[in-house]
Amino acid sequence: MIDLTEIHSPADIKGMSIDELEQLADSLRSVLLTKLSTHGGHTGPNLGFLEATIAMHYVFNSPVDKIVYDVSHQSYVHKMLTGRIAAFTDPAHYDDVTGYTNPGESEHDFFTIGHTSTAVSLAGGLAKARDLQGGTENIIAVIGDGSLSGGEAFEGLDYGATLGTNFIVVVNDNDMSIAENHGGLYADLHLLRSTDGTADNNYFRSLGYAYRYVRYGNDLRSLIKAFSEVKDYNRPVVVHLNTQKGNGYAPAEANREKFHYAAPFNLETGEMVSGGGESYDDIFSAMMLDKMKNDKRVAVITAGTPGVLGFTPEKRREAGRQFIDVGIAEQEAVALASGMAKGGCRPVFGVVSSFLQRAYDQLSQDVAINNTPVVLNIFYGSVAGMTDVTHLGWFDIALVANIPGWVYLAPTCKEEYVAMLDWAVRQTSHPVAVRVPGVMASCDREFPADYDDLNRNEVVCCGSRVAVIAAGTCLKAALEAADKLKAEGVDITVINPRFLSGIDTELLDSLKADHELVITLEDGVIDGGYGEKVARYYGDSDMKVMCRGVKKEFLDRYDIGKVLADSGLTADAVVATIKKAIK
Amino acid sequence: MIDLTEIHSPADIKGMSIDELEQLADSLRSVLLTKLSTHGGHTGPNLGFLEATIAMHYVFNSPVDKIVYDVSHQSYVHKMLTGRIAAFTDPAHYDDVTGYTNPGESEHDFFTIGHTSTAVSLAGGLAKARDLQGGTENIIAVIGDGSLSGGEAFEGLDYGATLGTNFIVVVNDNDMSIAENHGGLYADLHLLRSTDGTADNNYFRSLGYAYRYVRYGNDLRSLIKAFSEVKDYNRPVVVHLNTQKGNGYAPAEANREKFHYAAPFNLETGEMVSGGGESYDDIFSAMMLDKMKNDKRVAVITAGTPGVLGFTPEKRREAGRQFIDVGIAEQEAVALASGMAKGGCRPVFGVVSSFLQRAYDQLSQDVAINNTPVVLNIFYGSVAGMTDVTHLGWFDIALVANIPGWVYLAPTCKEEYVAMLDWAVRQTSHPVAVRVPGVMASCDREFPADYDDLNRNEVVCCGSRVAVIAAGTCLKAALEAADKLKAEGVDITVINPRFLSGIDTELLDSLKADHELVITLEDGVIDGGYGEKVARYYGDSDMKVMCRGVKKEFLDRYDIGKVLADSGLTADAVVATIKKAIK
Repeated sequence: MIDLTEIHSPADIKGMSIDELEQLADSLRSVLLTKLSTHGGHTGPNLGFLEATIAMHYVFNSPVDKIVYDVSHQSYVHKMLTGRIAAFTDPAHYDDVTGYTNPGESEHDFFTIGHTSTAVSLAGGLAKARDLQGGTENIIAVIGDGSLSGGEAFEGLDYGATLGTNFIVVVNDNDMSIAENHGGLYADLHLLRSTDGTADNNYFRSLGYAYRYVRYGNDLRSLIKAFSEVKDYNRPVVVHLNTQKGNGYAPAEANREKFHYAAPFNLETGEMVSGGGESYDDIFSAMMLDKMKNDKRVAVITAGTPGVLGFTPEKRREAGRQFIDVGIAEQEAVALASGMAKGGCRPVFGVVSSFLQRAYDQLSQDVAINNTPVVLNIFYGSVAGMTDVTHLGWFDIALVANIPGWVYLAPTCKEEYVAMLDWAVRQTSHPVAVRVPGVMASCDREFPADYDDLNRNEVVCCGSRVAVIAAGTCLKAALEAADKLKAEGVDITVINPRFLSGIDTELLDSLKADHELVITLEDGVIDGGYGEKVARYYGDSDMKVMCRGVKKEFLDRYDIGKVLADSGLTADAVVATIKKAIK
Repeated sequence: MIDLTEIHSPADIKGMSIDELEQLADSLRSVLLTKLSTHGGHTGPNLGFLEATIAMHYVFNSPVDKIVYDVSHQSYVHKMLTGRIAAFTDPAHYDDVTGYTNPGESEHDFFTIGHTSTAVSLAGGLAKARDLQGGTENIIAVIGDGSLSGGEAFEGLDYGATLGTNFIVVVNDNDMSIAENHGGLYADLHLLRSTDGTADNNYFRSLGYAYRYVRYGNDLRSLIKAFSEVKDYNRPVVVHLNTQKGNGYAPAEANREKFHYAAPFNLETGEMVSGGGESYDDIFSAMMLDKMKNDKRVAVITAGTPGVLGFTPEKRREAGRQFIDVGIAEQEAVALASGMAKGGCRPVFGVVSSFLQRAYDQLSQDVAINNTPVVLNIFYGSVAGMTDVTHLGWFDIALVANIPGWVYLAPTCKEEYVAMLDWAVRQTSHPVAVRVPGVMASCDREFPADYDDLNRNEVVCCGSRVAVIAAGTCLKAALEAADKLKAEGVDITVINPRFLSGIDTELLDSLKADHELVITLEDGVIDGGYGEKVARYYGDSDMKVMCRGVKKEFLDRYDIGKVLADSGLTADAVVATIKKAIK
């Protein structure tokens, strides 16, 4: 075995023999699996790209030659070879590195990336900058097959082909997105794999790239040969690697979807530590399956993340052709939904807030202007425990609620979520987005079956002087605060706004009679959010307004409890705010 | 000649002979040119697609068969054949129809569309809805070659290929976007045209489509033959038409960029009625050309609309490889710019606000998180007189200013625009967007060379009791209001905020001393905009705040003067507001 602690930079592997590089691969795999099994992380993508990463660093001269990783969740081995090995060998340092490339960590990392399909465009920019300044270094974009379905990747390939200079696109084709791949392009990738890259129909050649196929994408000799051949190549070229997702770890090879991003697991058996308990993805998938069975017009759409929606392979089979995975392609998911709604169907797009950002224009143009009754089921905040800066889920309110026509609902608990989602799918008057509550909670209030009376708030408890308008999951903190204050003889009003896309002017006016302060709570970025609408409405009145929400900033690997407390969104913070305000 | 007033629906042309259809084409062309020459509109796209539109309506059974037009600026002939001929033959009715498809006008129109690259996705949705409900009608998407560069079009084609049922994509290839085409895909289209569709490298086949090439895309017989062959076809198919942009009108054939969207012109000579006068696109292009000459790292990027930036073909040649047209691909423009900035260049992306909506995620992820010093030059509001609902330019403030890290500047006049743009390109600390003033204005105030002191406002005139914070072009109305009030003995404070992305808390605090009311003016949608940040800041103070801006709604073909007046943004409206408030 190779002593990994001696690997400080790519220079340390350049003198190795192929045999030594193969030993290095084994050592890296072993260390990686140990970390992943106890720490969790993107398992399959990194195992599959381990040999290719070694080969790239063996052949190219990073950081002079610049490698840009798409999504960058396959950059763990890159990190191990570029001075960050301790973050993989030493449990005390596991959290020293993020799960994505990070220029703050190393000069070998060029961008903080977490969304898919960006690497070709970003690397194309580096190449264009090199050309304008007369440089000669190699520019390499690494992109997985799953990311090729995103429009930005296509746009990047289309422009990159015209550079006319060195531009190397490494396609890591493991025949797998997060789940299986979808789209016409994947049939072509399959064809290319099955013909050793010789088929006439070749997506990359059709866009103007030279093309090189590597049949054994986990074989170091093949990889080194291929990369050596394209090094310093003077025109855009695609190197298509046929790799094995989860290579070298049997459970990950056998269950590629489960091991794409793995929670800690038993290294011997591959059994994952289960989170357990009821979850909103289970509620969503069960409810939608039921609706789909009763109405063939109902359909669920995902953009490459069926697992987030609770649609396991079994449930996808159960839903049949009413479950649509468009691949990682959020623009398509939204526009397709609009077309389907226009055609009489009831499409529901389940999506993570951070990824919905890809489809802002489609929410506006393809849906809202056409007033097609598309339904969005938005998972916001920290989804599946991800708190990386590239996956912040706090921008959704400003994104969705400021587009005319969209009705954005914020249920406060499980029962209200079910009622709102049910209405959203039944009605056909508006595009409706439902914000899946951030924490699992049950409540015994009664909920209406219909929400046609737009922007009508629910007064949950009545008091005087101070009213707290608490959106979604924040209601719990507001009610706890009300209880604490009641114990001190202060009765406040607590309101569930239900709607984030508009305010209840009638109720706000009525509060003027016996209230002097309104506090808004929202667990989303406060700029452009809900509270500001209330502040604006009351702007020229005597009502005081305090808006509480998440600060406009890029947090990275945050602690959710701390963020909520710092944002004034906990019960204690609300109590303190009110006591200070009313003295 | 055919009596066009007898054409009420596609049924009226189905019995015609080819000779009669050719006469019909001549009559339609003549009427179309008469309207376009006096009224203006998308000239080249409609002339080029005239025969194909006739052939489609001859072969297919609209509206049972559903035709979805991309961008839909090539739908004029479609409108003429579907009951709306009077809007083309009778000048009194010219404005009865919009320049885009519009379901409010006809059952033959399915979507209100104005942005590019959406038709394949939307039509794909109609096809999927048909399949889930057991329908058998033909679904036809019509897309121009210029729109194929957009990521949404790729995503739509990629998913559409998997439908496995009838799905007809008509590619109207006139070898031209708005300006010339750019990207690797266009080399392939060229290859296909030059080989009569027989080349091995075929983008459409690589994505899984059956493929049919029509060499004479303005020949009715060829078109009818091709459409008849794909009618009721049982799998996705691309019909690639080689058409002539501006066909049948010599000046439009000769100058295809100029006649893409033509102002009124002399029908005999093709001379356009010139707008004349100084314009911001001229200022921008002259200034950037100068910067590019002095620094090879400076580059200007457009996403298919060089004319909007004042970059005529001559200026593009002058800029050489420092002028980059990525095609209609805003995601690529923004991400490429980020890569270039990271690589040491100074990229400036000039873009129309409405189209920037396509790149929200790239503004956030590819740029802001990486803090790359990308510069945006944003043309907002009504650009080139376009007031269609699909081109509303009022959503930019909420779009850009709520993303952490972006500095969004709103110059109030020409001189400040020049100062701010100059700083934006010189500095390398932030991504900076400059909002090109909505109206040409000159002013004699002094402007600083640097804007590094973020969010520092300019107090333009000092008064008491009332302060008006007037963003960008609104400053003029505020100063006029101040003059009028001064004449009545009321001295107000007028502030130029300069920055839309943050507030000057120090100044806002100081106003509390001798002001009781702050009015914010912004000519953008008020929801999620600038004023709300001021309202929120003052929320718990005694300061009254009134926010004035454009209402959150989808206006169509609006009168800008009326919108500004209704929004309280004119000098008279500001005076009235203040007089009422201070009694």
